[in-house]
Amino acid sequence: MTGPTVSRALVAFICAGRTRDLPPDTIQSTQRAIANWLGCALGAVDDDSVQAALRVAEALAGSPQASIVGRNRHLDVVNAALINALAANALDYDDMHVPTLIHPTGAVVGAALALAEHTRASGARFVRAVVTGIEVECRLGLLLFPQHYDRGWHISATLGTFGAAAAGCVLLGLDAVRTGHALGLAGTQSSGLRAMLPNACKSFNIGKAASAGTLAALLAQAGFDSEPDVLEAKFGLFDVFGWPEDTTTVLADLGRHDLVNEASLKPYPCGVVIHPVIDACLALAERESFDPATVRRITITVHPRTLVLAGRQHPESALTGRFSIFHAAALALTRRAAGLSAFDDTDVHDPVLHALRECMVGVEDPALAPRQAHVTIEYLDGRTISQAIDHPSGSPQRPLSDAQLAAKFDELASRALAPDAAARLYDDCLRLYRLPDLDALTGHWTRPGTARAAHPVNPQ
Amino acid sequence: MTGPTVSRALVAFICAGRTRDLPPDTIQSTQRAIANWLGCALGAVDDDSVQAALRVAEALAGSPQASIVGRNRHLDVVNAALINALAANALDYDDMHVPTLIHPTGAVVGAALALAEHTRASGARFVRAVVTGIEVECRLGLLLFPQHYDRGWHISATLGTFGAAAAGCVLLGLDAVRTGHALGLAGTQSSGLRAMLPNACKSFNIGKAASAGTLAALLAQAGFDSEPDVLEAKFGLFDVFGWPEDTTTVLADLGRHDLVNEASLKPYPCGVVIHPVIDACLALAERESFDPATVRRITITVHPRTLVLAGRQHPESALTGRFSIFHAAALALTRRAAGLSAFDDTDVHDPVLHALRECMVGVEDPALAPRQAHVTIEYLDGRTISQAIDHPSGSPQRPLSDAQLAAKFDELASRALAPDAAARLYDDCLRLYRLPDLDALTGHWTRPGTARAAHPVNPQ
Repeated sequence: MTGPTVSRALVAFICAGRTRDLPPDTIQSTQRAIANWLGCALGAVDDDSVQAALRVAEALAGSPQASIVGRNRHLDVVNAALINALAANALDYDDMHVPTLIHPTGAVVGAALALAEHTRASGARFVRAVVTGIEVECRLGLLLFPQHYDRGWHISATLGTFGAAAAGCVLLGLDAVRTGHALGLAGTQSSGLRAMLPNACKSFNIGKAASAGTLAALLAQAGFDSEPDVLEAKFGLFDVFGWPEDTTTVLADLGRHDLVNEASLKPYPCGVVIHPVIDACLALAERESFDPATVRRITITVHPRTLVLAGRQHPESALTGRFSIFHAAALALTRRAAGLSAFDDTDVHDPVLHALRECMVGVEDPALAPRQAHVTIEYLDGRTISQAIDHPSGSPQRPLSDAQLAAKFDELASRALAPDAAARLYDDCLRLYRLPDLDALTGHWTRPGTARAAHPVNPQ
Repeated sequence: MTGPTVSRALVAFICAGRTRDLPPDTIQSTQRAIANWLGCALGAVDDDSVQAALRVAEALAGSPQASIVGRNRHLDVVNAALINALAANALDYDDMHVPTLIHPTGAVVGAALALAEHTRASGARFVRAVVTGIEVECRLGLLLFPQHYDRGWHISATLGTFGAAAAGCVLLGLDAVRTGHALGLAGTQSSGLRAMLPNACKSFNIGKAASAGTLAALLAQAGFDSEPDVLEAKFGLFDVFGWPEDTTTVLADLGRHDLVNEASLKPYPCGVVIHPVIDACLALAERESFDPATVRRITITVHPRTLVLAGRQHPESALTGRFSIFHAAALALTRRAAGLSAFDDTDVHDPVLHALRECMVGVEDPALAPRQAHVTIEYLDGRTISQAIDHPSGSPQRPLSDAQLAAKFDELASRALAPDAAARLYDDCLRLYRLPDLDALTGHWTRPGTARAAHPVNPQ
């Protein structure tokens, strides 16, 4: 782009984000996305990796500045951002900006919630911070995807760091100079390897992005200097991660169209590229009763990247089961369900599922978009049935209904909260923009007696 | 390499590092390197960026687990590692492993000191942790340099994260399985852009590597899983940062020759590639009195990378003045000194220095090694004098004498400690391997009344 650099365009956008009047669709999308994020964090309250990370953070953490979602416990903002963002991603049930494969709320809400609590921000300021952070990470994603991702970077982490820092700048009210330094501090902390996607560090990467972005905003506020043109500088982000071809188009409608409106909220707790396959299998199982013993072959045709990301025939763990189109398809066909309890209650080594996965073939078709899938079942008697999906459930074209989102939230939140508290919390999320502060949210887990206490601190 | 992967070779080396009998030269080199690191941290006690970062860390930090060098103040180990490693690099006076351009003690001693204090480790365990951490980061550096650095990565930060984690594993006594996970947790946090070298984030990068490595070791200890073969995994470090050509040679003498013995301790507080130029200029100024008014031209011939790293003709700030061969040469010729006070007391905009820099020409010569330089002065009367340097002062071939290192330490430490305390601390560093714990070191700044108190906490 000519004129201002991308770095400066983002700085101007972030500074304007503090007072921007948001359009109604953006407010609604953001409130739903935050509810979805909160539900995921509440649902992971007993997750092993969340508890391990929390034990470490509790032994380190200082001033009680922000709460840990679902627990009557406060940590400093950097550690709170780490734990909450990690937790919200732990079940693979959060959300996705499909054009960039970024979990849009992930690091951003982790940082924004911690800093909003700490600064006692209004609901509107919190929502604006989230909108701004999502915009920054996803615009950068549009500039760098797919090369950045294909080279092995966990894009939700590397660019989530920028989103988290941007949200922090809105909440701390940093001016343009300090915001530029905050982006520099974010860029030099940008990290996260895709080698971690099959293990607990997948979620840690997003937690770390939240904490790094929070630290970036705090250091910039304290007067710590960095490189304000971090994207374009020599040996800056673009130099190191790859130069985008065309920045003008990506930035043309910045501030006029909000990418949070393009987020998919996941209906199934697994990799988003698997969702159209599940939709197709659920539709097939709906059309006629399914008996694995009658099947000769099941052909699953998808975009080539889907097989790269989720092409494992036989997952070896519950976590990798969430990244196998074959396991998800077997689950959807046999259980006629692919929600939290379906995935949680299923043994990936179940012999029926294993045998069914053996009958499956994955076929890549570059003519398909990642949002599309085509599933064909050939029976032993020669008969076939097929189902094509163009847009998966949860996508902007087929968004979760309010009832679907409420049911998802309820299933997750009930792991940490009483049912009536979960329902009230959901309602509060959907009117967040008008709330004077976040007490209505955090009060559900920080008031004595309403949520489980923190587990005992037990540093080894 | 065939057989074990590099990841596994490093894990085995780290686990053995806990009880390894160190050869005398390694003990001496490490004790000197630690003294040098400590002096640099003490000398930066009033540095603006150190104070800004400390203000943030103090507002966040929790349990008083480890001290801040030079202050009667304790933070949690992650924040203490951040601040101390940042401080030790702030003056550009620390050390360098020239073949990889890694500051070997930087992140490693930052993490090791914090965890050694917290775990009440013996002096020997602390020294072993430092030796192990330096070995891990520098061996990785030998595998990845120069491509990794040339692509824009601040190698002291990206690989310092591994060194810090390795030191942490030694101090926490992690077994091979947990050590593998710690390296994975380090790798996915590996970050740091060279765009930061001209600003305060240069030192922040090293501080962040120390804190990330510390966190990696703590999380691994707490049972948090990662990718143990982080170097060789698909989308792991080598996949993302570049595959080394030959791993066998680099690892052949692992555990038999310790790279800490190849560290240069800086005699001048500026970029290490500048040091041979300063040596040459000091030698010329020693040979005959130097009058800037008589000079026609000064030709400085160096390795090509030296001009890339330090080729700015006229620095615009005190910090960038530490990365200009022309400014350093002007300083050495006119002041006959290039130590801490010479750099600190000099205005980079001084007209005499500016005029002298205008007379200077930098010439690259690929036949020279980075450790070499050749300086020729042509006078207005036609006469010329020249000086060549093969190995700079402070290099393994021309190490600082004990007296030189003690004098450097004294100048730095006296900024934070009384003179007699500084002398005792230096002596204690040089017998560290035999000390039962680190109280003899940390007692110099944590006993009430012996060091300045922490400045008031003042979060904005």
